[in-house]
Amino acid sequence: MNEEEFIAGMRGIATHPFARGLSDDAAVVEFGGKQLVLTHDMIVEGVHFLAHDPPADVAWKLVAVNLSDLAAKGARPIAALLGYTLGSNEWNRAFVIGLEQALAAFDLPLIGGDTVSVPAGSLKALGLTAIGETKAAPSRAGAQPGDGIWVSGTIGDALVGLDISRGRAFGDASLRNRYRRPRPQLELGRMIAPLVTAMMDVSDGLLLDLSRLAAVSGRAAALDLDAVPLSDAFAAVRGRTREARVAAATGGDDYELLFTLPDGAGEQVQALAAEAGTAVTRIGTINEGEGLTLTDSEGDVPLPERLGYQHA
Amino acid sequence: MNEEEFIAGMRGIATHPFARGLSDDAAVVEFGGKQLVLTHDMIVEGVHFLAHDPPADVAWKLVAVNLSDLAAKGARPIAALLGYTLGSNEWNRAFVIGLEQALAAFDLPLIGGDTVSVPAGSLKALGLTAIGETKAAPSRAGAQPGDGIWVSGTIGDALVGLDISRGRAFGDASLRNRYRRPRPQLELGRMIAPLVTAMMDVSDGLLLDLSRLAAVSGRAAALDLDAVPLSDAFAAVRGRTREARVAAATGGDDYELLFTLPDGAGEQVQALAAEAGTAVTRIGTINEGEGLTLTDSEGDVPLPERLGYQHA
Repeated sequence: MNEEEFIAGMRGIATHPFARGLSDDAAVVEFGGKQLVLTHDMIVEGVHFLAHDPPADVAWKLVAVNLSDLAAKGARPIAALLGYTLGSNEWNRAFVIGLEQALAAFDLPLIGGDTVSVPAGSLKALGLTAIGETKAAPSRAGAQPGDGIWVSGTIGDALVGLDISRGRAFGDASLRNRYRRPRPQLELGRMIAPLVTAMMDVSDGLLLDLSRLAAVSGRAAALDLDAVPLSDAFAAVRGRTREARVAAATGGDDYELLFTLPDGAGEQVQALAAEAGTAVTRIGTINEGEGLTLTDSEGDVPLPERLGYQHA
Repeated sequence: MNEEEFIAGMRGIATHPFARGLSDDAAVVEFGGKQLVLTHDMIVEGVHFLAHDPPADVAWKLVAVNLSDLAAKGARPIAALLGYTLGSNEWNRAFVIGLEQALAAFDLPLIGGDTVSVPAGSLKALGLTAIGETKAAPSRAGAQPGDGIWVSGTIGDALVGLDISRGRAFGDASLRNRYRRPRPQLELGRMIAPLVTAMMDVSDGLLLDLSRLAAVSGRAAALDLDAVPLSDAFAAVRGRTREARVAAATGGDDYELLFTLPDGAGEQVQALAAEAGTAVTRIGTINEGEGLTLTDSEGDVPLPERLGYQHA
């Protein structure tokens, strides 16, 4: 039973409506007449962070990737529980400092968890459970034909940031920070959750995540590659070519919000995004049918072999 | 920063009342006018289970140890999220079967989580977050002078079960099952939670867990070693000597409930335990002061060097 089959097995088990078929960013539990949002994401050395990444940044990322799932549900974070495998004394010390900093930055109380000893040199696999409250939890499955496809911020910065962290590229420090210290779009998520037809966060790559949103919505997605928002810092390293745009849209680790809006809601959402200190960009359209198509000013763009980072 | 210092660091961060100073079995969050109980426990190969333990039993134990924390808060389980590091195809397949079985046995919906790939041969570290609801969440800190100290079921079976699993002892199959497939005392916990002054589950060893309960309550605990309930199956392997009783009381993995009761509440709790299909036994008394003392029919018993299994 490989990864894909294992996840299919989990879907077979997770039949309760709270689970949302395990095809959403987070579980939504009705409790006390309110909507409780729960997520548990792990980050693993060599997969989600590099062995030489500063432990304080790893702590930040662990918090941020989980809060990004809450953001996609329009949730206000309430608390977090940490699952920690002890590392070296130096690593532990730096991790605690980073964790405290991240929790303070997001005003997130740590309320529990578990710490376990593992043999020295074991791979680090850290987990965080984040809980939040939402008034209206959009799903990934609500996209309607004619809806615009929108994304917040800029895409691809973390990809270049990873290259910089690996010593494979030079570029603005802001790019490396996008990789190491992502900023979950909590405020924007809360503001626009009641207006979107579907929403998720971009973690595994814009194309892969959009194809998932389209699939669970039972619709097709047409993406205008030229519209994908790139930062100047990204463009300074990679340019704005078709190749660069495809790389940006498959790179992952963006932790921006991807959402669909009915015609006419765009202006209101743009105004809200400005209030939240960011921007949103229309990058495509939802259609009847299925699958993902890419175009740019030169015409159809063949889908890359990999749409994103295909771990679970 | 070693394990102890790391946990002290976490306590320094986890200042929110929901966290209960990280010195309780679970966090208790006020939400929607109700009490939500949250716990996240990990189990690690070589620490909490053996590499050759059947994966289905590992799945069971992962669920059971977390539900035992809910039991200690008198909580009814609502749902769980899984953090899973993929193993071999065979291991994954057997784990899924065991997980489904455990979730069904406890009527526990799986609602989310994360699955990550790790290099083949990596140490398995699995996490589960369990949430539940309680009407009255006893803490560990409420023990009062004069209270009786009580424990459910029998103590020490899992210790012998571990020896059997390791091929170091022969004994009744029920003992190995106590190690591999613990039964959280959910029903008993719910029934007696409103009556106890303090409660926790016994996971790291009766002596260690009792010393923790006494310490956070700011009281002393006097334990009558002869009163510690042993099963016939345990006694058939280890006998009922002082040495055997000390081993039972430090072995851990019992997942019974340890609690304190005011004078006069014992009979009612014994009746409730019978309803829940188990028994409770008075094993000592809470006094003014601090520390743990042991006696048996021959007099004072020196505390063993290790009171239990001192991981976090």
